[in-house]
Amino acid sequence: MKRVEYPVAIKSLISELKRMPGVGPRSAERIALWMIQSRDARAGEIARAIGEAIETIKPCTRCGFFTTETVCDICADPARDPALICVVEQPTEILPLERTGAYRGRYHSLGGRLAPLDHVGPEDLRIDALIERIKTEQPGEVILAVGADVEGEATASYLAGILRELPVKITRLAQGLPAGGGLESADELTLSRAMAGRIAMQS
Amino acid sequence: MKRVEYPVAIKSLISELKRMPGVGPRSAERIALWMIQSRDARAGEIARAIGEAIETIKPCTRCGFFTTETVCDICADPARDPALICVVEQPTEILPLERTGAYRGRYHSLGGRLAPLDHVGPEDLRIDALIERIKTEQPGEVILAVGADVEGEATASYLAGILRELPVKITRLAQGLPAGGGLESADELTLSRAMAGRIAMQS
Repeated sequence: MKRVEYPVAIKSLISELKRMPGVGPRSAERIALWMIQSRDARAGEIARAIGEAIETIKPCTRCGFFTTETVCDICADPARDPALICVVEQPTEILPLERTGAYRGRYHSLGGRLAPLDHVGPEDLRIDALIERIKTEQPGEVILAVGADVEGEATASYLAGILRELPVKITRLAQGLPAGGGLESADELTLSRAMAGRIAMQS
Repeated sequence: MKRVEYPVAIKSLISELKRMPGVGPRSAERIALWMIQSRDARAGEIARAIGEAIETIKPCTRCGFFTTETVCDICADPARDPALICVVEQPTEILPLERTGAYRGRYHSLGGRLAPLDHVGPEDLRIDALIERIKTEQPGEVILAVGADVEGEATASYLAGILRELPVKITRLAQGLPAGGGLESADELTLSRAMAGRIAMQS
């Protein structure tokens, strides 16, 4: 008696689906069987949507956000404050910042952050393009919105050093207690940064 | 200042991915952005794998399991015991049964189960095909491997009634304590079925 397996086309589909972030072997199998069994055209529509997105979406030539044009909706919006550039590691971090409603300037995605262990050096990031933009657009302030982890810190320090020569104010996001977080759940480093960055209260 | 959103192609991709079982809005967004940002051809390969699977995989004309041929590997295997047909609700239940190693016969997928509330009646299931197979293949036993829930019970009773006229033994899967499950975690119905189905111990 032969050992029974799924046909090759199903097995390849399962192993392709397993590559997606957050999808393990069991959910990949579940999704694959759902795709094959769905009687309407759903799975075909998913395949088409993937194809269309990877073909039409490209990075904005200016800031690196997602767009189907040369320049994205944010860069093209004349109502944006031209005096501010917010530097992020990835274009995926732009919408979360937008949703806060706390920022009205433009963005610049580095496309990563300094990570020597992963062989990511300054030449792999869009730093030259940032310098070029600062010279051309002459913003008053560049906000480094990088992570508060070791690699984010290293990236921020490196950028601050490089940009020091330019006539622009360099700031970075505040570090401290997360909203809703009590002191008992904050680690030592967070507490020491919250202490160092303490601000005067309006009286 | 315009409200910023993802380009339409990304939003459509996210809403397509959200349809997949077990994928919520946040993971759909995460997968979509991963697809667009993956620099190699991964996302395209996933789209191709979906297309190939839905084009080439079809149900075995005999048992309903997945195949690219007319008849699946199980039905085509001469080493299978022709005296046994195991009836399942869905073709996806065949591999789990195979993996137990406890069965050496062939299968028959009904393609569902009786569910009046979902408008699934006997005419929607592959019951005529099952009767035809019993007449042609003349198995000694038909095992009803349907669920132990209300709809599975209803399907089993209905089939037992329909198949009574045919010269074949009808059995169904045992119900009782799940392996590793203590009495304290079994509900009343499970306990009463385990009691009713008790078997003599070898002494």
